Amino acid sequence: MKEINIGLLGCGTIGTGTAKILIESKDLISSRVGTALNLKRIADIDINRDRGIKFHEGVLTTDALGVVDDPEIDIIVELIGGEGIAKDLILRAINNGKHVVTANKALLASHGNVIFKAADEKGVDLAFEASVGGCIPIIKTLRETLVGNRINSMIGILNGTCNYILSKITDDKSSFENALSEAQANGYAEADPTLDVEGIDTAHKLAILSSLAYGMEINLNDIYIEGISEITPLDIEFAGQFGYRIKLLAISKNRGNKVETRVHPTMIPFDNLLSNVNGALNAITVSGDAVGNIMLYGHGAGMMPTASAVVSDTVDLARNLLSGAIKRVPLLSYQMESIKKIPVMPVDEILTNYYFRFSVLDQPKVLSKISGILGDHGISIKSVHQKGRKSKGSVPIVMLTHLAGEAGVKKALSEIASLEIVKDKPVLIRIEDKNSQD
Amino acid sequence: MKEINIGLLGCGTIGTGTAKILIESKDLISSRVGTALNLKRIADIDINRDRGIKFHEGVLTTDALGVVDDPEIDIIVELIGGEGIAKDLILRAINNGKHVVTANKALLASHGNVIFKAADEKGVDLAFEASVGGCIPIIKTLRETLVGNRINSMIGILNGTCNYILSKITDDKSSFENALSEAQANGYAEADPTLDVEGIDTAHKLAILSSLAYGMEINLNDIYIEGISEITPLDIEFAGQFGYRIKLLAISKNRGNKVETRVHPTMIPFDNLLSNVNGALNAITVSGDAVGNIMLYGHGAGMMPTASAVVSDTVDLARNLLSGAIKRVPLLSYQMESIKKIPVMPVDEILTNYYFRFSVLDQPKVLSKISGILGDHGISIKSVHQKGRKSKGSVPIVMLTHLAGEAGVKKALSEIASLEIVKDKPVLIRIEDKNSQD
Repeated sequence: MKEINIGLLGCGTIGTGTAKILIESKDLISSRVGTALNLKRIADIDINRDRGIKFHEGVLTTDALGVVDDPEIDIIVELIGGEGIAKDLILRAINNGKHVVTANKALLASHGNVIFKAADEKGVDLAFEASVGGCIPIIKTLRETLVGNRINSMIGILNGTCNYILSKITDDKSSFENALSEAQANGYAEADPTLDVEGIDTAHKLAILSSLAYGMEINLNDIYIEGISEITPLDIEFAGQFGYRIKLLAISKNRGNKVETRVHPTMIPFDNLLSNVNGALNAITVSGDAVGNIMLYGHGAGMMPTASAVVSDTVDLARNLLSGAIKRVPLLSYQMESIKKIPVMPVDEILTNYYFRFSVLDQPKVLSKISGILGDHGISIKSVHQKGRKSKGSVPIVMLTHLAGEAGVKKALSEIASLEIVKDKPVLIRIEDKNSQD
Repeated sequence: MKEINIGLLGCGTIGTGTAKILIESKDLISSRVGTALNLKRIADIDINRDRGIKFHEGVLTTDALGVVDDPEIDIIVELIGGEGIAKDLILRAINNGKHVVTANKALLASHGNVIFKAADEKGVDLAFEASVGGCIPIIKTLRETLVGNRINSMIGILNGTCNYILSKITDDKSSFENALSEAQANGYAEADPTLDVEGIDTAHKLAILSSLAYGMEINLNDIYIEGISEITPLDIEFAGQFGYRIKLLAISKNRGNKVETRVHPTMIPFDNLLSNVNGALNAITVSGDAVGNIMLYGHGAGMMPTASAVVSDTVDLARNLLSGAIKRVPLLSYQMESIKKIPVMPVDEILTNYYFRFSVLDQPKVLSKISGILGDHGISIKSVHQKGRKSKGSVPIVMLTHLAGEAGVKKALSEIASLEIVKDKPVLIRIEDKNSQD
């Protein structure tokens, strides 16, 4: 049987891991595929660094275009990342009729509709398991396993940096800043952590998953995004007292002819399995009309786990090539002509449970004023708690609500914030509870 | 594109669920596959029962052979179960060149080597995701996702009946008998629960998974099996005091040129995610050299979750048929010629941590006698606890050990059991702990 030739673009952390598996586990892979996968060329700007792998002479090159244009290469694996040169190289590879594996969530979330269309028209495959959840097989599960299900909802912890930081604040009472520094020192967070801590990386992944789950065009722009930089140890502590942990969640819900897609810090009860997913780990629960709830859990980042997903994609495409079954599974889970623009529900229209924390002067009638305003906006209070001690003349009041509409909540909180008796900006954290709609 | 014709054998619970999805979600499936999956014929001994589905006239038949021999049928879905007629029908379908989907773990665990060989020789596909873990995509994960990994170990809760019973004893302090009756009343346990509670069903599943993980022939006979019928509320309570829950686990470990495969009640620490998998749910963790640990969780049984897995298998085979890619993935994960007979390590050779409970007379020197015998057999004690009150003249002594060899443990316990000061049979429960070998 013919060997499959692979060209790798980008030999940083994930690229090195991928090369390691393809070279050191070549026999294992070949005993499963029935033929050898040959890592023919690797393009990187730095070809001299010691990567701990013995490459054959001439494998490493700085000439990425040469790899993409190499007529002997069957599959291009793009691990450069970002939306610049990676996009040009992928489109050129597609245009050259090569099949593509990528881990580039930022690129797919922002330019996926163009890239998938190009691949479809050219009749090549594009695999992207490593773009969401590292080694967790969520893409394959949505594209293949759940093929007979209508997806009701997906809820995931999809960013290891944020989960590491929140776990640190929760378990070690660190401040956000200290937890972030530690994440950086341990290599879990980038020098510029904005994409991670502001929820943007999570949104990239949610945009991809929502498209696969509901058969919709990729839509990053309409995802509501809130990061974790304003989460305080105080709210995490109060959450714990009510039986909740705070996680940065990607939430996506099927609302018939609309979808909800949002990323924000969320309280989830201790008995939700996701609340036990700590440190840099990722997990995602999917609810489908036939399967009920399933959960997939694993390392969402890191050299070898992500490389494992890249290799499984590469093998998938190699198997398609060997059996002449290109595009055996449609790129975005549904046949191209079935993919619709499904509108995203504006965040103001969502219904959920809320946690509020107000810093108020310790005076009579404070509670009646606040609850009056909430009542005016149709927000029904489930419980009120005067928590903790007076600090700088004010005391914290915490409220949990029944299901309430986001629009009313925003108006009420803005009115409450303007009261003289209320100090600081009110804190709002959404709760994903048993009574939350699927 | 050509329609794919399906013949269904057995229309009980899972069969009815499968028919429901194929009929009621026909458009959804077709928008993903690009062609219709047509449920052409269904064979069952009872064709008159109301199944809540509207079948076209002539679809239901009592003539299973007629379905298997129907030249227009492409894929046979076997949901009869058991090792009798199901085996004959599957072999006949294979011989007729039809592709086969089955959920029949008992059959595959006992006769898989013959059946897979027949399918390989005839060049047909055989899919069996629903045979292990219901809707949990563990077969696809082992065959496809982890293709670049050496599997170190797998640990799973694979039987919903046992997990339901153990959860009931743990959370509601039920006796084993009451928990079993409740499981039967709720439809989680069969009238004859032997296959489930004695661990045999779990062993069937472990035999299949071990073959896929390590590239070995299916070997049911050498799996060490211990059921849950002797687990008492007392041991569950003591386990809780040490920070453990008791679960019936399927454990499989790669030991180089041997494998460990065993099924027994096991103590696992609270912070192991598996300890939070309760009720009738299933989960499995897989440890691979690249991925680290992943966990998959979901309904391991039940009409619609299992039917969801059957449908995804059926779609997989339909896609292979449509793209001419039969046997794109080797049946047992490795190419047939790479599959080896890997010996199973006798249970006496395993090393693990143990919990012992002895009922002893409340006399001096009891502890020194028992610990002396354990020491003679090289068993090092981690902690000793005199637990609970005197009952019928004896008191319970509980011990936790460091890593110890099973052979020595058995000899020591047999010597200890014969002491006059020891009443009742000593209790032994294995512990899967952080220091357990992968």
